[in-house]
Amino acid sequence: MSSKAPVSVIGLGDMGRALAGALLAAGHPTTVWNRSADKADELVARGAVRAASAEEALLASPLTLVCLLDYDTNRAVLEPAVGALRGRALVNLTNGTPDEAREAEKWAAGAGADYLDGGIMAIPATVGTPGAFVLYSGAERHFAAHRETLEALGAAKYLGADAGIAPLYDLALLSAMDMMFAGFFHSVAMATSHEEGSAGGFTELLVPWLTSMTQVMPAFAADVDADLDADPNGPAAGAGPALAQGLDVVLAGTQNMLRAARDAGVRADFFERAVAELEERAADGVTEYTGPETVRRLRTRRS
Amino acid sequence: MSSKAPVSVIGLGDMGRALAGALLAAGHPTTVWNRSADKADELVARGAVRAASAEEALLASPLTLVCLLDYDTNRAVLEPAVGALRGRALVNLTNGTPDEAREAEKWAAGAGADYLDGGIMAIPATVGTPGAFVLYSGAERHFAAHRETLEALGAAKYLGADAGIAPLYDLALLSAMDMMFAGFFHSVAMATSHEEGSAGGFTELLVPWLTSMTQVMPAFAADVDADLDADPNGPAAGAGPALAQGLDVVLAGTQNMLRAARDAGVRADFFERAVAELEERAADGVTEYTGPETVRRLRTRRS
Repeated sequence: MSSKAPVSVIGLGDMGRALAGALLAAGHPTTVWNRSADKADELVARGAVRAASAEEALLASPLTLVCLLDYDTNRAVLEPAVGALRGRALVNLTNGTPDEAREAEKWAAGAGADYLDGGIMAIPATVGTPGAFVLYSGAERHFAAHRETLEALGAAKYLGADAGIAPLYDLALLSAMDMMFAGFFHSVAMATSHEEGSAGGFTELLVPWLTSMTQVMPAFAADVDADLDADPNGPAAGAGPALAQGLDVVLAGTQNMLRAARDAGVRADFFERAVAELEERAADGVTEYTGPETVRRLRTRRS
Repeated sequence: MSSKAPVSVIGLGDMGRALAGALLAAGHPTTVWNRSADKADELVARGAVRAASAEEALLASPLTLVCLLDYDTNRAVLEPAVGALRGRALVNLTNGTPDEAREAEKWAAGAGADYLDGGIMAIPATVGTPGAFVLYSGAERHFAAHRETLEALGAAKYLGADAGIAPLYDLALLSAMDMMFAGFFHSVAMATSHEEGSAGGFTELLVPWLTSMTQVMPAFAADVDADLDADPNGPAAGAGPALAQGLDVVLAGTQNMLRAARDAGVRADFFERAVAELEERAADGVTEYTGPETVRRLRTRRS
């Protein structure tokens, strides 16, 4: 008999199967359910118990992880089994927005369930491996109660009592990744516009370049945090000494990127907007390129 | 007397001073010139010779590095000294576009000078340190003749005979960095829209996340290279097995990023366009998200 806490997993797509697999590997008695039952076959062969319904899965364990396509699917699956939630804990790992997480927490509270929202920062192949991490938010006591189990999925990081903060950080991290990959494809399109260019050869230069440039981010972040404490109607905080750059130099560089993309026959919408945005700053009398100024101009409203 | 080759440096902005400093540190007899002469003071104190004019700088060494604001400035500085170029070598490290580099090479050839174009992948503070690298293009014999000297600035990478390929790769690398930083600021704006969010805390999660995600890029690049060999009028090459993703999943995730940015009061132009672009693919009957499809759709013309 395992000394590990029993866990149920609802939703066995690529990610749900990876979650259940990591729990099995860590020795947790694991019950699984999926609308298409055959998705459970391999997990059952590895020792999982197949539940006949979502309700049966919920009743089988004090803690259930849910990982489905979206929140509408969550509701469609859990609503008919709502009676089974009372006194149990639900960790929602379905990808959604902060507002959806807050609504789901209210719904779960109405059903008498403890609720945590989570964001998985891993791909299915890396769940449960070093480097994988999962963000959680909701009542801290729920996190404390299940932390040991949750560590089986990847390093468990608790962000705060508001259920919405884990999905906010999750989507922010994914957004930064998405824009980094957009930059990757844009630059690969440029490099391979040349007959002597190759995506592979270019990427050998790109990966160490991007990796080294991420090291500047903490200094930019410190500038932004300093500005959060400043008067939002006063001027933005300046750049730290290591980051000081003239706006004219940044603008000239961005204009070169725009022209080079056009010359290479690559869509340059991003750089058209970037040039226009820097020109707006110059027109407003700004002379230094800083992180706080950049972040202020991204906000459509003051908090 | 140093056994190292003498070098001249024209243009002593932050980057030009860093280049001259790296040459001095490596033991090269170094002559420097800048329109505002006082920019040379610290270098002269470290052993550099101050030239009284650009012409004098060119005449002082068989090899001159030029690092000015832009190509117009290059021409304004070098044109009056054109007679001093004959039989000498010019390495142009001024940031510009591939077409500008090709024109500059023709101009230098007309003046009887050997020419290389270069792109510095470093900030002034990291020139000459491990990790810094400089891209070069132009005739390979010129690169071979000066390689040992150029290694003082950072790892010297020769890209090809067309002078335009170093600035193309340079601007492609800078473009990818620029978009990565745009993603950084976008995600920081999202995270700090929450009263419990902080840029510093968020960035501690972001840097390892982005760094780990760059590891996928070589596999995407291999897919793109496979597609370069395929019929440009046929379907795009598929994704390698590790990269296969349904377009519907990618679209749902991107829609969440868009909604979450709007909910957080952060400008979401990038994600509006990304959603629209993925919807175009779906309307065209594409069902898998791949690198080759992404790169094809970035091209505004076939090469």
